[in-house]
Amino acid sequence: MDIAALLNDLSSLLSPQRLLTGPAELAPYESDGLTAFHATPGAIVLPETAEEVIQIVRLCHRHQVPFMARGSGTSLSGGSVPIPGGLVIGLNRLNRVLRYDPQQRIAVVEPGTINQKVSQIAAADGLYYAPDPSSGPVCTIGGNVAFNSGGAHCLKYGMTANHVLGIKAVLPNGEVVELGGDSLEQVGADMVGMFCGSEGLFGIALEITLRLLPKPETYFIVQAAYDSLAKAGAAVSMVIAAGLLPGAMEIMDRLAMDAADAAVGACYPPGAKAVMLVELEGPREEVEAERPLLLEVIAASGAYETRIAKDEAERLKIWKGRKSAFSAVGRLSSDFIVQDGVVPRSRLGEALAEIDRLSQHYNIRVANVFHAGDGNLHPLIMYDGHTPGALERAEELAGEILRMCIRMGGSITGEHGVGLEKRAYLAEMFGEADTEFMRNIRRAIDPLELGNRGKMFPDAEAPALTTHGLHPLEKAGVIFRE
Amino acid sequence: MDIAALLNDLSSLLSPQRLLTGPAELAPYESDGLTAFHATPGAIVLPETAEEVIQIVRLCHRHQVPFMARGSGTSLSGGSVPIPGGLVIGLNRLNRVLRYDPQQRIAVVEPGTINQKVSQIAAADGLYYAPDPSSGPVCTIGGNVAFNSGGAHCLKYGMTANHVLGIKAVLPNGEVVELGGDSLEQVGADMVGMFCGSEGLFGIALEITLRLLPKPETYFIVQAAYDSLAKAGAAVSMVIAAGLLPGAMEIMDRLAMDAADAAVGACYPPGAKAVMLVELEGPREEVEAERPLLLEVIAASGAYETRIAKDEAERLKIWKGRKSAFSAVGRLSSDFIVQDGVVPRSRLGEALAEIDRLSQHYNIRVANVFHAGDGNLHPLIMYDGHTPGALERAEELAGEILRMCIRMGGSITGEHGVGLEKRAYLAEMFGEADTEFMRNIRRAIDPLELGNRGKMFPDAEAPALTTHGLHPLEKAGVIFRE
Repeated sequence: MDIAALLNDLSSLLSPQRLLTGPAELAPYESDGLTAFHATPGAIVLPETAEEVIQIVRLCHRHQVPFMARGSGTSLSGGSVPIPGGLVIGLNRLNRVLRYDPQQRIAVVEPGTINQKVSQIAAADGLYYAPDPSSGPVCTIGGNVAFNSGGAHCLKYGMTANHVLGIKAVLPNGEVVELGGDSLEQVGADMVGMFCGSEGLFGIALEITLRLLPKPETYFIVQAAYDSLAKAGAAVSMVIAAGLLPGAMEIMDRLAMDAADAAVGACYPPGAKAVMLVELEGPREEVEAERPLLLEVIAASGAYETRIAKDEAERLKIWKGRKSAFSAVGRLSSDFIVQDGVVPRSRLGEALAEIDRLSQHYNIRVANVFHAGDGNLHPLIMYDGHTPGALERAEELAGEILRMCIRMGGSITGEHGVGLEKRAYLAEMFGEADTEFMRNIRRAIDPLELGNRGKMFPDAEAPALTTHGLHPLEKAGVIFRE
Repeated sequence: MDIAALLNDLSSLLSPQRLLTGPAELAPYESDGLTAFHATPGAIVLPETAEEVIQIVRLCHRHQVPFMARGSGTSLSGGSVPIPGGLVIGLNRLNRVLRYDPQQRIAVVEPGTINQKVSQIAAADGLYYAPDPSSGPVCTIGGNVAFNSGGAHCLKYGMTANHVLGIKAVLPNGEVVELGGDSLEQVGADMVGMFCGSEGLFGIALEITLRLLPKPETYFIVQAAYDSLAKAGAAVSMVIAAGLLPGAMEIMDRLAMDAADAAVGACYPPGAKAVMLVELEGPREEVEAERPLLLEVIAASGAYETRIAKDEAERLKIWKGRKSAFSAVGRLSSDFIVQDGVVPRSRLGEALAEIDRLSQHYNIRVANVFHAGDGNLHPLIMYDGHTPGALERAEELAGEILRMCIRMGGSITGEHGVGLEKRAYLAEMFGEADTEFMRNIRRAIDPLELGNRGKMFPDAEAPALTTHGLHPLEKAGVIFRE
């Protein structure tokens, strides 16, 4: 790794405004959505074209400097924490829509394109881009691809990988490849699917072909209040068993409601221990036909109050409460971990009871907000970063929750990825041969392990200089968080 | 490659009834659904358990003998033509359903399980397995996985890869890996998606976890007759533009109708130059609501006769005509090539006109049956295998059609795979770096290239002893086909 030689070469490619090396310039890039990890990169580059990205990667390869591509840095698994001393390639300026074909229902975008912008552009033709992570207003498509992001609606529509038809990428060795194309049908092994979710290890996507869907004609959202979390959990299975396939099915517990109330004034029923949100969507006739069945199932599930959005404004308000919940928990606790695990839907009730037991055992508050329809839990584990040992205990609790997910036949991540945070659990979920299979493919693509080195795999390649706990500047009183 | 030593080791593992080496025993395995290619394997083994398959693959690895796993041999791209002198591993006896969980909507099956059997088992719980290749009554799930099979309903539901959640496989080096799991959410890169469509190059699936869907409550199928193929092609885009997403949308031209008529008495409108089949499916209210819109669009598209299936028997009859079309063409011509290519849906009319022009130019009859909704063409190119040069000219025409697909921004295969037949076109569709990327991953998984050697990649590894044209026994008058 020869960063000085790399910087020298980069300086003839990029102006000083787009090649950042000063400590104050590096600071904003030292962490991501998972604030417990931070590392200082060697430099930041801000390319403006795909050709510049290719040149930068080729220089990294020549000088054997590891690099990490970054969009808006919303990763919740530490996936966009810099490689210590490595290069951060900021892609936000590559935000063009290169092709938009409403007849073919395709948009080809650059990786820095904001998720929600795609739907905004397609709206004029009655189309939209389905994957809707809560960070949709700020996160980028490149990051969505790298972590195969989900969202509230992946119950019905699947993850990012289900909506990416083609990828033009620069590999860590500087080669440029085009995987997939305009069509849902693939030739041979699904290389596009493989690239999605590879967490930056396989290179950088430069052009991404997205599938657009016709916007549902109408929506119908119900918010049902329960006097216990277990009842809400059981209601989810009842809805599915009734043969309904809602666009989204979410649950928030009391703590999460309190946080959202404080942040956006969402006004949940005061006595409720949990609310379930169920959204039907589709052709008007279908939704109208399914409404009575849904309300019947909800009544039978023991909901004591049911609220129906009367218009689009009320619908958006309900969603705003739900989607703000992660950041709103910051109102209840200065620091928290957003955990992400999956259990079989049929074991939701059991899983929630176990999280409650763990929360009491550790005496740590845990708010639950989750994509209930697909069993994707998001426990928000609160701690005070200024109390010595508090982060470690919160992480211990988070680990117990992940082990529970593995025991129940679920997964250590639903949509946030492995990143830095869950490397240790990869080996608990997969056997040695399975992990070696993945690593073998990584080595085939990137023998020097330049692409986002230190993420996903649990071992020696982990970067030694990544720090953990309060940010050094925060410790020194330079950065204050609310 | 030491086949004698391998056979010696195999003989202590398997009885002579399950280790076939005699010429008469090998003959049925020399070809597959694409009859133009054949090769003589060194031996056939018929394992009965996953453990036996693992042992066999380990022995192949030790003796460096290439192997090909085979289900029912219905490949239409030569994907299950043996490797000359290599081992064929027949998997039909591994046909157990290992786990069936209607609540989780999951079935875990062995690779030799027949496609339609999965839906038959799940029917009691109102569930089914969506991918429906025309060979569904005989083809196996293992083959479906290897070639990422589609079917009439992939317009709405996607390919096999969209319905496989997990795979336990033995790699060509004898290692056993478990990829994916029970959940739609993947951890990291999508290794299950990568395995699907890998055409046997990455090893053998031993256990396959399938996603089951609730059976649609009702169906509504319309058969619309047109006086030109171009009108039928245009109708497809009109249906989609109207905002409908049918379960399936198919077109058959006059020659295909004649064949199906002769085979199963399907009774198509005598004067029709093309029929379009459109099937709506879903909740009763939705289908009822969409019916009038569909019929309105069909009327506006210039259909001169519209037939609606009045009951399930009539519906199945319409499907029987369509699904029999491939084999029925055997009534019109002793030999034919089933081609498989994709064009953008919006260019269907143009593509059909070009196929017609090529058919006239070559003076070769071409019947067209295709999944119109996703632009997946299946020209059936007829020739007489006893006429010297006829096969070669038919293949030349087939190649021209594939090149047209590439030019139009489509694909050289929609659902049949590359196999032996399309290796030469892989390089025309993909750039050198793209092909090298795929090959690099293959080498990482199987450096000795033991798994289905000679398929997919266009080069020196092609098996020299594969013959082309009439089967030698057929030439000698030993085998007669209708």
